[in-house]
Amino acid sequence: MMIVMKETATEEEVRDVVEKIEGAGALAHRIRGSRLSVIGAIGDVEQDASVASLGLEGQPGVDRVMPILKPYKLASLQMTHGERTVLDIDGRKVGGENFALIAGPCTVESREQMMQTAHAVRDAGATMLRGGAYKPRTSPYAFQGLGREGLMLLAEAKAETGLPIVTELMDIGDVDAVMEVADVVQIGARNMQNYPLLAEVGRSGRPALLKRGLSSTLDELLMAAEYILKEGNPNVMLCERGIRTFENAYRFTLDLMAVPVLKELSHLPVIVDPSHAAGRRDLVTPLSLAAAAVGADGIIVEVHPEPDEAICDGPQQLRASEFAEYARAVEQAAALAGKALAGKERVLA
Amino acid sequence: MMIVMKETATEEEVRDVVEKIEGAGALAHRIRGSRLSVIGAIGDVEQDASVASLGLEGQPGVDRVMPILKPYKLASLQMTHGERTVLDIDGRKVGGENFALIAGPCTVESREQMMQTAHAVRDAGATMLRGGAYKPRTSPYAFQGLGREGLMLLAEAKAETGLPIVTELMDIGDVDAVMEVADVVQIGARNMQNYPLLAEVGRSGRPALLKRGLSSTLDELLMAAEYILKEGNPNVMLCERGIRTFENAYRFTLDLMAVPVLKELSHLPVIVDPSHAAGRRDLVTPLSLAAAAVGADGIIVEVHPEPDEAICDGPQQLRASEFAEYARAVEQAAALAGKALAGKERVLA
Amino acid sequence: MMIVMKETATEEEVRDVVEKIEGAGALAHRIRGSRLSVIGAIGDVEQDASVASLGLEGQPGVDRVMPILKPYKLASLQMTHGERTVLDIDGRKVGGENFALIAGPCTVESREQMMQTAHAVRDAGATMLRGGAYKPRTSPYAFQGLGREGLMLLAEAKAETGLPIVTELMDIGDVDAVMEVADVVQIGARNMQNYPLLAEVGRSGRPALLKRGLSSTLDELLMAAEYILKEGNPNVMLCERGIRTFENAYRFTLDLMAVPVLKELSHLPVIVDPSHAAGRRDLVTPLSLAAAAVGADGIIVEVHPEPDEAICDGPQQLRASEFAEYARAVEQAAALAGKALAGKERVLA
Amino acid sequence: MMIVMKETATEEEVRDVVEKIEGAGALAHRIRGSRLSVIGAIGDVEQDASVASLGLEGQPGVDRVMPILKPYKLASLQMTHGERTVLDIDGRKVGGENFALIAGPCTVESREQMMQTAHAVRDAGATMLRGGAYKPRTSPYAFQGLGREGLMLLAEAKAETGLPIVTELMDIGDVDAVMEVADVVQIGARNMQNYPLLAEVGRSGRPALLKRGLSSTLDELLMAAEYILKEGNPNVMLCERGIRTFENAYRFTLDLMAVPVLKELSHLPVIVDPSHAAGRRDLVTPLSLAAAAVGADGIIVEVHPEPDEAICDGPQQLRASEFAEYARAVEQAAALAGKALAGKERVLA
Repeated sequence: MMIVMKETATEEEVRDVVEKIEGAGALAHRIRGSRLSVIGAIGDVEQDASVASLGLEGQPGVDRVMPILKPYKLASLQMTHGERTVLDIDGRKVGGENFALIAGPCTVESREQMMQTAHAVRDAGATMLRGGAYKPRTSPYAFQGLGREGLMLLAEAKAETGLPIVTELMDIGDVDAVMEVADVVQIGARNMQNYPLLAEVGRSGRPALLKRGLSSTLDELLMAAEYILKEGNPNVMLCERGIRTFENAYRFTLDLMAVPVLKELSHLPVIVDPSHAAGRRDLVTPLSLAAAAVGADGIIVEVHPEPDEAICDGPQQLRASEFAEYARAVEQAAALAGKALAGKERVLA
Repeated sequence: MMIVMKETATEEEVRDVVEKIEGAGALAHRIRGSRLSVIGAIGDVEQDASVASLGLEGQPGVDRVMPILKPYKLASLQMTHGERTVLDIDGRKVGGENFALIAGPCTVESREQMMQTAHAVRDAGATMLRGGAYKPRTSPYAFQGLGREGLMLLAEAKAETGLPIVTELMDIGDVDAVMEVADVVQIGARNMQNYPLLAEVGRSGRPALLKRGLSSTLDELLMAAEYILKEGNPNVMLCERGIRTFENAYRFTLDLMAVPVLKELSHLPVIVDPSHAAGRRDLVTPLSLAAAAVGADGIIVEVHPEPDEAICDGPQQLRASEFAEYARAVEQAAALAGKALAGKERVLA
Repeated sequence: MMIVMKETATEEEVRDVVEKIEGAGALAHRIRGSRLSVIGAIGDVEQDASVASLGLEGQPGVDRVMPILKPYKLASLQMTHGERTVLDIDGRKVGGENFALIAGPCTVESREQMMQTAHAVRDAGATMLRGGAYKPRTSPYAFQGLGREGLMLLAEAKAETGLPIVTELMDIGDVDAVMEVADVVQIGARNMQNYPLLAEVGRSGRPALLKRGLSSTLDELLMAAEYILKEGNPNVMLCERGIRTFENAYRFTLDLMAVPVLKELSHLPVIVDPSHAAGRRDLVTPLSLAAAAVGADGIIVEVHPEPDEAICDGPQQLRASEFAEYARAVEQAAALAGKALAGKERVLA
Repeated sequence: MMIVMKETATEEEVRDVVEKIEGAGALAHRIRGSRLSVIGAIGDVEQDASVASLGLEGQPGVDRVMPILKPYKLASLQMTHGERTVLDIDGRKVGGENFALIAGPCTVESREQMMQTAHAVRDAGATMLRGGAYKPRTSPYAFQGLGREGLMLLAEAKAETGLPIVTELMDIGDVDAVMEVADVVQIGARNMQNYPLLAEVGRSGRPALLKRGLSSTLDELLMAAEYILKEGNPNVMLCERGIRTFENAYRFTLDLMAVPVLKELSHLPVIVDPSHAAGRRDLVTPLSLAAAAVGADGIIVEVHPEPDEAICDGPQQLRASEFAEYARAVEQAAALAGKALAGKERVLA
C-alpha cells in the first residue's frame, strides 16, 4: 500500500500515518521526494489487509492511498512517483545525469599491480575503483583471492587516489573486514538469491552493487534488491552482467534490453558489467559504448597493467595503458544518453 | 582451401588456377580484393582432398595455399583477407563506413499508409524502405499480408521516393513476383534454415537480408548465408533480431554481442532489427542507439503513420511523425562507431 | 466457435449448420466423435464475428455453441471434447493405447544397409520404417541425401517388409516424388514454421509427423499443426526432439514434460525422437524408456547395421543387432503407461 | 592426480604414499573400493606439480599414477574406478540398486499436517521424510518457514515414524539447529554456488542433497559437489529439479538427460525432484515414472494432506490420500531400471 501525502501535509500528519501503519504490524517506509512525501506500508498479505482496513484515505494530510502493483515494493518506480534515486558514494554521484565509471583489476594481486591500476584509472577519469579480495570460484581448487591482505591493498589504493572502493562480499563471516574498506559492497551473481547475505548488507546501510544472476529474470533481480531495501538501506545499484543463453560464441549474452526495462520498473540506478559477459578484451569497448548509449547509469570494467600475467580472467581485462582512450569513448557515448562522468572535475582538480 | 595469388599474378595465371580447381570437381570462387586476388576452392570432403592433391602451391602466380578454418567458407572474414563487403543497393552503400537506415511499416496495408510512411522516412534520411507484402504468421487465421497488391504499392512507393525496397520472400512460388519489386529480399527468422529458399535467393543474385533464427547460433547463421553465397550471390546482409531466452520481460532478447562477433568472423555487413526484439515502441530508440554504438552497419526499423491502427505489430512501430528525431539520434550514435548514413546527401539533394 | 450438436441431431440438421457457417465465410470442420458431432467454425476475427451473429444456439439439432479458448482450434483437445485422435497408418494404429515404434537409419545409404536395417527392425517389432532421402544439413557442403534413389530404396524396403515408410519432405519441389513413397511425411524441426510446406502437406491429406522446432513453444508447435489441419488433413502426429538450452553436455535437451502437456492441450498423438536430442547411442535407451513411461504415443529412433560407418549421425544410431533387446525394454515401459506396440501381432504373424 | 595402489599393497605402503602427497602440500583423499585402494592427490595447479614431481610411480605398492581428467576430482567416476557410491541414511540405502522415495510437505505448517503426512508416506513405502522449516522465498514478504518450531515438528515426525529427515539449510547461522534434526541436509538451487555454505556442510560430514541451480551446467553442479567432498564429506546426492528455458508452458523444464549423463561423469547418486519442475500436480506422476525409468536413484516429491490449503506450492503437492497408488507406480518404473525401494521391508516390518 502506498500512502501519498498532500503537499501541504504537516510533519505531524505524516507521523500520525506512520504510527497507524506500524500499529497494524506493517513497516512504514517514508520516501521524501522533491515535492511529495510518500509512505510505503509494506508487509505480508495479512499486514496488507490490516493496513487496508485502517481507512487512511480520510486521514488529515493524506492525498490518496494506492496499491503497489508490483511484487517488489520499495524497488518500484511507482513508489517514488517516478523520481530516480541518485546515490552519493563519497562524493561521486550515480544515477540521474551522473555516469559512474568503475574500473580496476578482477582480483587484487599485489601492491604494485593495485597501485599502478588505481593511478591509471583515476587519471583517465574513473569515478570508483573495483578489485576483488574474495573471489567466488567455480572450482574449490582455484585461487580464492588474497582475502584480508587484498582488502588492505584496496584501502591503500583509496588513500593514494581518493577513489571509493567497490569490492565483493561473499561470506557473512567476512562482513566486518569488508565493511572497513568497501564504499560499495558488491553482491555477485551467484549470491543474488543468498537471502541472509542480502539482509546483512541491508542492515549495514552500505551502498550495494547487486549483480543479476545468470538466469535471473528482472523481477527476481528487483525482488533480491527488495531484500536489501527492506532492511532500511536505500542505496542499491542494479548490475546487468550477461545472462546464460544457448549461444556459446561468447561466455554470456549481455542483455542490454534489461537497462531501459529496469529503469522503467525501478528508480534504482543500473550499471553494466561488459567484462564478465564478453570474457574477451576486444568486445569490451563496443559493448561499453552500447551500454552507455542504451542509457546505463554506469559501467564496471576490469583493467590490469599486464593482463597476460593476471591470475584470473586475464583475457577480458583492458590494458591500463589503453584505458584513457577507452574512457573518452565511453564518455561520448554516455553523453548521447544525456549523462556525464560523475565527479570527474573533482578527480582532475 | 584458399589460394592467395601474388600481387603480380597475371589474369592468365589466375585463370589457370581456377581451371585446375574446377577440374578437381570443386567450385572456384574468385574474390577480388583491393590489392590481392584470392580464389576459394569450395567443395565437400572428397573435393577438398582432390584440390589439396593438385599441388597448387608451386603453380605460377600462387603466393600460398591455406585451409579455411571455419565450417563456412565464403562467408568467413579469412576468405577476404579481412576486407569487408560493401554492398551497393541502387546507389545506397551498406557496410564499411556506410550505415543503412531501413524503415517502413511492418505490413503494407493501403496506398495512403504506404506513401505517407515512405515520404516521412525518406525525408528524415532513411536509406531504404521496408514493408511486408507476405507475412509469416504463427496463426493460419491471422492476416497473411496483401500479397501482390502489397508488392504493387511498394513499387509505387519506390517510384515516388526513390528509396530501394526491402521485402520478405517466404514462398518459392512467389519468387518471380517478389523479385520484380524487391531491391533487397528479406529472409525471415523462421526461414533461416529453409535451404531450398536460400538456394533460390542465391541463384537470383539479388541482395539478401538474412535474419537470424530465434535460437540460431552465429555459426548456423553464417552457414545459412553460405547457402546463398555458394550459388554465386555475394550480396548478403546478416540481421540480428533478438533471440529466445528465459527472460519474458520482453518479446525477445536483442543480442548485441552478435554484432562485433559476426564482424570478426565474417566480412558481411550486419544489420540490427530492434522492433521485433522489443515488441514495444519505447524500447526501440535506446536499442537503436546501442546497436549503432556497438558497430552495426545498419538498422531495420518499423514505422507507421498511426501505429494504434496498424493491422499487425502496432505497439512496436515508431510513429512516422517522430521518425526524424529518431533518425538524428541514430546518426549520432553511428558516428561514434565511425559510420555515416549512406546516401543521405543524394536523398536530400 | 464450436457448435456441439445434440446426440439426436439428424444428418440434415448438421448439414444446415455447416451451410450457415460457410455462408458466413468461415470454414466448417466436422468432427465425428464416438457419440457426438461437433462442428468447428474456423475463421479470422471478422469471420468469427459473422458466425457469432448467426444465432446458431437456437438452430434445430444444436446443443450448444462455445468459443474455442486456444489460438489453435482444430488441434485443441477441446475441439474433440476430450477424444484422442488415433491414426491408422496402413494398418498400424498410433494414439490411444497404441504405441508406435518407428525405426530405421538416419539416412538411406545403400540397398544393403536399407534392407538389413528394415528386416532387423521389423523382426524386433518396429511398427514403421524411417529413413531420410532428403537431408536438411547445416552446411551446404555436407551430404544432402540420395534423393530419388533413396526414395526408391525405401519403396523396396516397404515391399519386402510390409512396414509403412516415414520420410522427410523439405522442398515443395519434391512433393510428388516423396508422396509416391511416404506413408507418413516428416516435417523437420527447421521447417516447423515453413508455412507453404505445411499447407502443401495439409492439402495432400497424407499423415504427417511434425517435429517441434529447436526453440519452439508448445503453442507454436500446435499452431504449426493447425496449418496442416486447416487444409483438411486430420492426420498429424507431433514430435518432441529436444530443445535448445544453455546446457551443452548434450546436443539438445529432451523436453519430456512436453508429452503430458501436449496431450492435455491437444488430441493429436505425441511421438518422441530420442536420437537427435542425445546425439549419443548410450543415452538413447534410457531416454526411450523415459519417453514411453511419461506417456508418449511412440518413439522414432535411428538404427544402423554398422553405425561406425554411417554417412551421418553414426554416434547416435542404435546397432541393428541390439535393436530387439531395445524394443523389448521400450515395450515394457510403454506398458507402464497403458500402451502396447501397435500392429505387432500382424507383423509377427 | 590419482594413485592406484596394487591389490597386494600393504597398509603401510598406502600410508607412505599418503604422507608423501601431504608433504607436497596437497590433500590425500583415500577411496576404498571393493578391490582396490585409490588415493586422490588433490590440490591447486602448483600442488599438482609438486605431487607430479614426487615420482610416485616407482613407489612400493603403487600400480599406476594417472591424471584426473575432469575439473572436479573427488566427484568424478574416474576417481572411484567406476564404482558407485551407495549412501546409508540411518539404514536406508541410496544408490546402486536402491531407490529412494523421499516425500513430505513443501513446508512444515503444523503438527497435524506434519504427522498426517508422515504416516501416510511411511505407510505407502516412502524411505525418507522431507519438509521445509526454512524456506528461501523470492519475496521478502512471503512466508519464510516456521524455523525452529518447524525443526521440532520434523524431529517429532521422525520419532513417530522412524523416517530419516531431509530438510533445507540456507543460512550458516542456522547450521547447529538444522544439524540437530536433519539426517540429510538439503542445499537449495539458489544456494548451489554459495561456497561458504557448501564448505560448512562439507565439514559437518552430514549427508547432503545438492540441488542443481536453475541454469547450472552439469559441470558446475559437480564442481559445487566438489566443495562439499573436498572437506572430507563423501555423502553427497545430486538433485535435478528443472532448468530454466524459453518454454513457459511449465514452471521449469525437467532435464532428465541429466540423470544418465551425471551417472556417467560421477559416482554420486542422482535424485529427481518432479514437483518443483512441474509446479502442477497432474504432471508429477508421469514425470516421476520417467525419472525412475531413466535411471534415477530416487525421487523427492511434495505431499500434503490438503494441498488446496497449503501455505505454499499447494498446486504441485500430491494428495496424501493418493500417495500409495503413486508409490506403487514409481516402484514399477524403478524396477525397469533395475532398482527397488530402499529399506521398504524394514519400514513395513
